[in-house]
Amino acid sequence: MTTQTSTATVDEAVRAATRAQDDVAGAPYETRATWLEALADALDANADELVALADTETHLGPQRLTGELARTSAQLRLFAGVVREGAFLEVTIDHDTPTATPPIPDLRRMLVPLGPVAVFAASNFPFAFSVLGGDTASALAAGCPVIVKAHGGHRGLSRRVAEIAVSALADAGAPSGILALVEGREQGVELVSHPDVRAVGFTGSVGGGRFLFDLAVQRPEPIPFYGELGSVNPVVVTPGAAAQSLDDVAQGLAGSFTMGVGQFCTKPGVVLAPAGTGLAEALGALVPAEAKPLLNDRIGDGFRGRLGELATHDGVEVVAGDATSDDRAEASPVVLRTTVADVLAAPEVLLEEVFGPATLIVEYADLEEVSAALAAVPGSLTATLHAAPGEEAAAGLLADLRRVSGRVLYGGWPTGVAVSHAQHHGGPYPATTSVHTSVGTTAIRRWLRPVAYQTTPDDLLPPELREANPLGLPRRVDGVLESSGS
Amino acid sequence: MTTQTSTATVDEAVRAATRAQDDVAGAPYETRATWLEALADALDANADELVALADTETHLGPQRLTGELARTSAQLRLFAGVVREGAFLEVTIDHDTPTATPPIPDLRRMLVPLGPVAVFAASNFPFAFSVLGGDTASALAAGCPVIVKAHGGHRGLSRRVAEIAVSALADAGAPSGILALVEGREQGVELVSHPDVRAVGFTGSVGGGRFLFDLAVQRPEPIPFYGELGSVNPVVVTPGAAAQSLDDVAQGLAGSFTMGVGQFCTKPGVVLAPAGTGLAEALGALVPAEAKPLLNDRIGDGFRGRLGELATHDGVEVVAGDATSDDRAEASPVVLRTTVADVLAAPEVLLEEVFGPATLIVEYADLEEVSAALAAVPGSLTATLHAAPGEEAAAGLLADLRRVSGRVLYGGWPTGVAVSHAQHHGGPYPATTSVHTSVGTTAIRRWLRPVAYQTTPDDLLPPELREANPLGLPRRVDGVLESSGS
Repeated sequence: MTTQTSTATVDEAVRAATRAQDDVAGAPYETRATWLEALADALDANADELVALADTETHLGPQRLTGELARTSAQLRLFAGVVREGAFLEVTIDHDTPTATPPIPDLRRMLVPLGPVAVFAASNFPFAFSVLGGDTASALAAGCPVIVKAHGGHRGLSRRVAEIAVSALADAGAPSGILALVEGREQGVELVSHPDVRAVGFTGSVGGGRFLFDLAVQRPEPIPFYGELGSVNPVVVTPGAAAQSLDDVAQGLAGSFTMGVGQFCTKPGVVLAPAGTGLAEALGALVPAEAKPLLNDRIGDGFRGRLGELATHDGVEVVAGDATSDDRAEASPVVLRTTVADVLAAPEVLLEEVFGPATLIVEYADLEEVSAALAAVPGSLTATLHAAPGEEAAAGLLADLRRVSGRVLYGGWPTGVAVSHAQHHGGPYPATTSVHTSVGTTAIRRWLRPVAYQTTPDDLLPPELREANPLGLPRRVDGVLESSGS
Repeated sequence: MTTQTSTATVDEAVRAATRAQDDVAGAPYETRATWLEALADALDANADELVALADTETHLGPQRLTGELARTSAQLRLFAGVVREGAFLEVTIDHDTPTATPPIPDLRRMLVPLGPVAVFAASNFPFAFSVLGGDTASALAAGCPVIVKAHGGHRGLSRRVAEIAVSALADAGAPSGILALVEGREQGVELVSHPDVRAVGFTGSVGGGRFLFDLAVQRPEPIPFYGELGSVNPVVVTPGAAAQSLDDVAQGLAGSFTMGVGQFCTKPGVVLAPAGTGLAEALGALVPAEAKPLLNDRIGDGFRGRLGELATHDGVEVVAGDATSDDRAEASPVVLRTTVADVLAAPEVLLEEVFGPATLIVEYADLEEVSAALAAVPGSLTATLHAAPGEEAAAGLLADLRRVSGRVLYGGWPTGVAVSHAQHHGGPYPATTSVHTSVGTTAIRRWLRPVAYQTTPDDLLPPELREANPLGLPRRVDGVLESSGS
């Protein structure tokens, strides 16, 4: 039975999480940090087994998977640091000011955990966006129990990671119920609808994501749904860049759109290049004819369906690769070409994500056409500019690219998402369903809500808010930021 | 025609806001701060006229309205300070770290304005939650143009404030289109559905708010809907407080639930008091029989309807006041009494907000009953504890109260919302539809989204993100908070 839950029913998992929530939220921050580190250590200690298991289910290859696991444990350790520092609590203290309008009583504000969080794992990052990925790491760091809905594309790995994680958490003294795994589509629906689930993190398709988003906001008590759905990640190559560094651009693009067999949320899917400079041909000459295995047949079907729709559309030319194959299991890179006029005639077909190793070169006549095309691009996670040094158009193009995305790159390629404080992984819909990030340290804020205490005696305040700052937290006191403890 | 727009059609207003958005967002922060101050000065300069006009439409009286206007201009000046300080931009810089997993390129993150914002004014605060209220002040501070949907209860005032505001903004050099007023229910629907509106702020009823929330999230591209809908603001009086200070509690409660003729979002509507200590009687003896004018007949109808439903419900006793009057225009205070058992038998009737001068004393036998009753209370903006000094139950009760609300008071009364850095005005649904605050300086975050720049040359970065920190902004650099400019 493919829709059966492996370890718990949804209701059991949510009840256990609800029972655990006060203990999870109430543990000292140092303890919470060690839970995250215990998970990181457990991942690292079992890396060989997990990478091998992941490879059998996703075909992504040991090298990529080894790197992804290392990134995932580094992410858990980064959040341990966030928990120890405590700035994420946003402690704010206003002493009473009887002369203000209206008078200000003693007010002390901090962020507190929302409660049980549902996390939907993605197909394409079996470690970094799965059981112990960024959503789970940031939610645990926030003090929320997590129920992960496993992705059907790597069930065995999900179960094994969950087993290792639950055991590591128990060994580290974390409350039972802090983490659980459930499986199955219906179970996912039940999870989003469960009255005790307080927020949802999701990475996946526009169709599945919007369906669950609609469920979350139609509940009697709507809950936040932080979804990352789909992105075409536009790239603009200026005339200057095409003239000065066409080969470098073509090589970088070839590497980026075929990375992970094109199965990246940040894959550059639409590339605006000056007509007549030969980027499409240069790119076509670089991509290998060799096919590589896709994640699974369902991904293969989706790729073939969207690619066929695109490749046979008016004004679209197949420059390189086999766009008519019906191979569900494997794919070789495909380079397509069209014009801005054709894109603007059918943006709903030509500017929709193709999940897999294909990219569409859109040739433009002038920069006005670039702006017109960018205005039609759906909200994206990233947007990239390749320009020549000092090229005058760069500033205006960066402004256009910022309007449509959440991460703007000057040079370089969008695949590969660094996990750091300044990272943002999000963008206008459908890139994400909210303005928050799902990668980087501020992802923690999604699982927290503010609470203000008014005129509360010091000994009845949470330690985070006490006058003497016993936890040494960064605070804003009477409007002034203090970067470290008193 | 009551549904006509006064100054602009919705589409005209949104188009003008869209045309203005880059100029609003791009103006120097110092300039943006002076726009807010110009609005504050204009309010203050016209205070006498505006207070008189507000009184004719809302009957709230010159004293209250004078204070509310002063609070509103103070709020605009507070946000001017927020804009000048610049911490709200959350500037975060990670220099490149090639040794990280995966390698971290130079990444620089800040928050940028969402674009045109729709603000729905409330009936009960004709200044502080209306044309130039907290939503408008925080959105302008964020760099977003604002289209206010006027509340039908104070149309004349709304038009006059908008006229004064638009003129003050023009005199201060702000772009045309930065602020507009529209009127009418259908126009409100059109506003939430307009493709160029990027977010909504709303203060009002559960019915109206949920209707607009549903519209916002069902758009092809959903937008954030920051709604404040309804709140019963539970109060717990412990046995110790009842024994030591019953008269003080009764006097404070009488003042709070009748303030503004009970038309406050933060009115204490449900008061848990120990049975047999006489709080209901003491309160009943304090409230005047004199009726005061309600905001308008529509509010009067709502009050009479809900009050009648409550007063005639099984187990509810009218202790003081006239619960059967059919006066739409005026109301005198009403004190009701019931028990925890009755509340738990019909929470959907007994624990729903009554907007107007009524409060329900819920008598409890022991603290277990208090916890059971609090678990049934819908999400509220505030929750208040009255306990005797050192009373053992206080800590546990504060935890229960925090679970259900966004502001926890120890002593004092929830009416009157100070505007400061540490304030939070929000709570679990239906208090608010999101986890953000609508009062206090962090309200600005609702109108912003993150953008990260990757490997972008210094001269092409926005000045906020340049290495030398030319704007002197607080930043987090390589993970370390810097509380002021370099």
